[in-house]
Amino acid sequence: MIVTLSKGADGAAVKKQLVARGLWVERLEGAEVVAFQVSPSSRPIDSDELRSVQGVADVLLSAPAHPEVSKQSSIVKVGPHELGPGAPFAVFSGPCSIDSEERIHRLARDLAQAGATFLRGGAFKPRTSPYSFQGYGVEALKWMKQAAKDAGLAMVTECMSEATVDDVAEYADMVQIGSRNMQNYALLKEVGATGRPVMLKRGMAATVKEWLLAGEYLLMHGAGGVVFCERGIRGFDSSTRNLLDLGSVADMAHAKKVAVIVDPSHASGRLDLVPHLARAAKALGAHGAMFETHDDPGSALSDGPQALSVEAAVSLTRELTESRA
Amino acid sequence: MIVTLSKGADGAAVKKQLVARGLWVERLEGAEVVAFQVSPSSRPIDSDELRSVQGVADVLLSAPAHPEVSKQSSIVKVGPHELGPGAPFAVFSGPCSIDSEERIHRLARDLAQAGATFLRGGAFKPRTSPYSFQGYGVEALKWMKQAAKDAGLAMVTECMSEATVDDVAEYADMVQIGSRNMQNYALLKEVGATGRPVMLKRGMAATVKEWLLAGEYLLMHGAGGVVFCERGIRGFDSSTRNLLDLGSVADMAHAKKVAVIVDPSHASGRLDLVPHLARAAKALGAHGAMFETHDDPGSALSDGPQALSVEAAVSLTRELTESRA
Amino acid sequence: MIVTLSKGADGAAVKKQLVARGLWVERLEGAEVVAFQVSPSSRPIDSDELRSVQGVADVLLSAPAHPEVSKQSSIVKVGPHELGPGAPFAVFSGPCSIDSEERIHRLARDLAQAGATFLRGGAFKPRTSPYSFQGYGVEALKWMKQAAKDAGLAMVTECMSEATVDDVAEYADMVQIGSRNMQNYALLKEVGATGRPVMLKRGMAATVKEWLLAGEYLLMHGAGGVVFCERGIRGFDSSTRNLLDLGSVADMAHAKKVAVIVDPSHASGRLDLVPHLARAAKALGAHGAMFETHDDPGSALSDGPQALSVEAAVSLTRELTESRA
Amino acid sequence: MIVTLSKGADGAAVKKQLVARGLWVERLEGAEVVAFQVSPSSRPIDSDELRSVQGVADVLLSAPAHPEVSKQSSIVKVGPHELGPGAPFAVFSGPCSIDSEERIHRLARDLAQAGATFLRGGAFKPRTSPYSFQGYGVEALKWMKQAAKDAGLAMVTECMSEATVDDVAEYADMVQIGSRNMQNYALLKEVGATGRPVMLKRGMAATVKEWLLAGEYLLMHGAGGVVFCERGIRGFDSSTRNLLDLGSVADMAHAKKVAVIVDPSHASGRLDLVPHLARAAKALGAHGAMFETHDDPGSALSDGPQALSVEAAVSLTRELTESRA
Repeated sequence: MIVTLSKGADGAAVKKQLVARGLWVERLEGAEVVAFQVSPSSRPIDSDELRSVQGVADVLLSAPAHPEVSKQSSIVKVGPHELGPGAPFAVFSGPCSIDSEERIHRLARDLAQAGATFLRGGAFKPRTSPYSFQGYGVEALKWMKQAAKDAGLAMVTECMSEATVDDVAEYADMVQIGSRNMQNYALLKEVGATGRPVMLKRGMAATVKEWLLAGEYLLMHGAGGVVFCERGIRGFDSSTRNLLDLGSVADMAHAKKVAVIVDPSHASGRLDLVPHLARAAKALGAHGAMFETHDDPGSALSDGPQALSVEAAVSLTRELTESRA
Repeated sequence: MIVTLSKGADGAAVKKQLVARGLWVERLEGAEVVAFQVSPSSRPIDSDELRSVQGVADVLLSAPAHPEVSKQSSIVKVGPHELGPGAPFAVFSGPCSIDSEERIHRLARDLAQAGATFLRGGAFKPRTSPYSFQGYGVEALKWMKQAAKDAGLAMVTECMSEATVDDVAEYADMVQIGSRNMQNYALLKEVGATGRPVMLKRGMAATVKEWLLAGEYLLMHGAGGVVFCERGIRGFDSSTRNLLDLGSVADMAHAKKVAVIVDPSHASGRLDLVPHLARAAKALGAHGAMFETHDDPGSALSDGPQALSVEAAVSLTRELTESRA
Repeated sequence: MIVTLSKGADGAAVKKQLVARGLWVERLEGAEVVAFQVSPSSRPIDSDELRSVQGVADVLLSAPAHPEVSKQSSIVKVGPHELGPGAPFAVFSGPCSIDSEERIHRLARDLAQAGATFLRGGAFKPRTSPYSFQGYGVEALKWMKQAAKDAGLAMVTECMSEATVDDVAEYADMVQIGSRNMQNYALLKEVGATGRPVMLKRGMAATVKEWLLAGEYLLMHGAGGVVFCERGIRGFDSSTRNLLDLGSVADMAHAKKVAVIVDPSHASGRLDLVPHLARAAKALGAHGAMFETHDDPGSALSDGPQALSVEAAVSLTRELTESRA
Repeated sequence: MIVTLSKGADGAAVKKQLVARGLWVERLEGAEVVAFQVSPSSRPIDSDELRSVQGVADVLLSAPAHPEVSKQSSIVKVGPHELGPGAPFAVFSGPCSIDSEERIHRLARDLAQAGATFLRGGAFKPRTSPYSFQGYGVEALKWMKQAAKDAGLAMVTECMSEATVDDVAEYADMVQIGSRNMQNYALLKEVGATGRPVMLKRGMAATVKEWLLAGEYLLMHGAGGVVFCERGIRGFDSSTRNLLDLGSVADMAHAKKVAVIVDPSHASGRLDLVPHLARAAKALGAHGAMFETHDDPGSALSDGPQALSVEAAVSLTRELTESRA
């Protein structure tokens, strides 16, 4: 954003007005024109408000980059459930990989009773190594669907191939796009075209703008809503698995006004930190939290070290949803 | 940490036990020995607990890197105030630069009434450009000291030169080391030697271990306690000024068990996000929050765009400290 | 890697031997065993050499993570051309997007005469915004194939959807996987299965290990060789578009011994820096460089600002390949 | 930089002209004015050239941020030696820590014969841990001075405390500011005031602009020239110790036109990669390289694993300086 000054305006006085509104500005000068460049790390502000400031000639803006995302009602509906500003804080939980029919039924029941609304779990797994377990596929989708239905939960699971979009969309109430595929545009188009609501995880090095533009691909192609999910970006410190960027979540929830949730399991990889980070997410104004649970983490087929015990997951779910009663 | 296996032990069974305890492990094999390497992004665990696992032969650890920090009582005392685990959540507020005697007195009074315990403000300012305002120096220290005293607050201010250590230590109840000087070892030694408690801001690219080791310099040379302050690290997204790393704060508060506070003003630079991030910090278990305030942000000599109005600061202080009543 | 000491060995003497071999080590101690943990930023070393050091009991290693990549002959063949250690330095050039049949023919001729061996260009374009030009598709593939053939060049172009793998593999001599799809495993499997050699661009936040593992997916599924391409990772400084990581390229070329090339156009986005960075890549031991060219950059359908003029591209190609005569 | 359009100008035609000059632009629109915002990752361009483009009304620029750095002749003189654009490629070598009088004399002789011009070495050492060796101090300065003098080399060594500025400036021909102190403004002022030329290492998370502004502090306070040294920034991949940013070096050398050298030892920490990275630095247009050497790396008091043997250092020095004959 650029704010140009009227001829003869008092630059210092205008600057004072801009700073007082939370804008970081840098003075630019041409042969004829003086202007202030407004840094993107400024408080969002309506350009009409700026135009009314004494001494301001014009306010120059770029065209909206993601009109569909901006137009989207900030509440996203997934069956009977609502997610986003004004809706109750939502808990998503379940195992990293779906590994047993019986187990997922039991877990879904326990989570639903505690107040969770979404059952998450992987049928197709994106794994860094080709030699790691790749998921049970369609069979796991069926187990999970039935378990979610019986427990009154909505089901969310990842789609990671154009070839399985139809299968996943048939079973899932909300389709997840994983962080490694945030800019897999072919997949975004196909998943969007199913009309399902989508949970879009942030890429490991994605800017907020790139993340919103990935959501734009989904909505432009027909997605029934997009919920953004922050799951940690690439950091330089190995004491947590990734780097949880709650500043961006605050920006998404309060300034961009989109539905956004937080995944503290992948963000930290630290069993002991998951509950603290989930509480922070709620206090911040995120619209939900997603964390991994397993009734026998030592036997989990993936990500066991970050899975909460069922007891811990139930207790955390209760705490996070109790104000909803 | 390395866990070696007994001859003939069942590696898979041991791995299951480790994973179930929240440990990320990788199998290593030698000519004679099999072992698991435990990733630093694992849940902290007592090595005696691991030694008792069936099939484990030995647990290999590195020597403690920062014995003084680990030994420090996690509560830090600053005059009558206490900071850290178990102590009430502490609010630090004040202007970025101290710019007027009258202003700082009025502000101190308002903040104290709302529940703040620390008055912060800069007398010497570290500025990226040599052409920016550099602070009012000792005169500002005097104004600030008197204002804090009259209002019953403790005073914290930055020391950025070996040459002014004595001056700052004479007036400040707690000395601040800024992020740019986190590894200025000459300064750490001199400030430590004053015996004052110190607030140590994290460097923009410092790992948690480097941050703790900087604290070790302070304590080894005599500091009367160290409070760590996360103020955002360098990020790649310009929608916030820096990148607030609350995962590291959770690690510091709950696993490292040191006194740690959060500065959402420098972390975000976003007036509109400061209250949300301060709430997140409290919910996470941080021991305090520090945010900038000014009664006329447009006229502030530095960092005006991120300064809360006095009204907003008072209201946020009340909210963050109300459970203390 | 962990090096354990024999009972009674002189730890300091062993450490001296390890340090002298370029290893960064940290001492670990258990109830029974003393060991040194070797940092990954050490010089690669054969474990047998370490086992022969006086005082060393055993050397513990993890299983090879990417056996197919390690097994791959480091020379990759693409038709009559060879790429990798020992092969001549290869130049890849062409427009970002293929936008005209005539233009690509003329360009291919000019580049071939100057010494280039690969014609690059996009028929399908991955664009951050859904509103940007998405490529001319199969038609562009045909233009490009003919132009490359006529000029005696090999053709490389990006495949970004499972649905177009067959089309791209029909025309391309080497299939490119873009950085956004480096961990799109469904695509890696399909492209690998075509048997074509593949150029695998590094993801914007990918570690060297993750990059090699993505190559492993390709080879495991049948790819006829993998050439790795560094194109800049996400950085925090806006004076270049991305951050060129030549340290990783040196590691890939000399320690990992895989075929690796550099793309200074995407890495810097800076027309004026492309030739300097291409020279650095060659001096470093990279096996090729890829840079964008256009005969009318102002009219390019994508990435015009980083396209060299044909004259500049021809001159740079000559300089980089002249020692081949 | 902002380019405003004349009333009625053809925006698309102007954009084409800007793109063709290597500028990345975004269109901004106000009630009255249309403009293009030019990204900082564009080719540097003279604003007068832009003003002459048909349809351009004005070009808005910010005030020069670092006039002294820009004014500095790009050649820096250190005694009889010259560094910078047009001067011969300079080699700086020596041990990380100065640990013996005899050793440094022998080493200086060998390096000088091979073509090096600067003897580097630490008398005062910045160490992450307070328990690591901190340097031999003034005694080491004396050994080093005599060794450099006898061999006809200039001497460069780090100053890390305001208290030792006079001592270091007395002995050193060029004073080094380490990366941890790049924004230690009190030190920059004191070192600048000595009038000595200064080698300024880049901070681990410093932008190019912050680095130049730190140089501005030095020159503003009297430094007899500033040579910038890139030594790797903080990265996320542990296969090298830091992340060498040669794109920024190219920008500094060719666009900012300041004297800049590269330190591949600290950047990579990898004995095996140092020569490759030094060659890349030279090919890129850097004005010198600095690498660590030791005649018994296993016994070095710091950073032994990255020290070249004397033989390797001599050979690399010869190679890098041979075109000077």
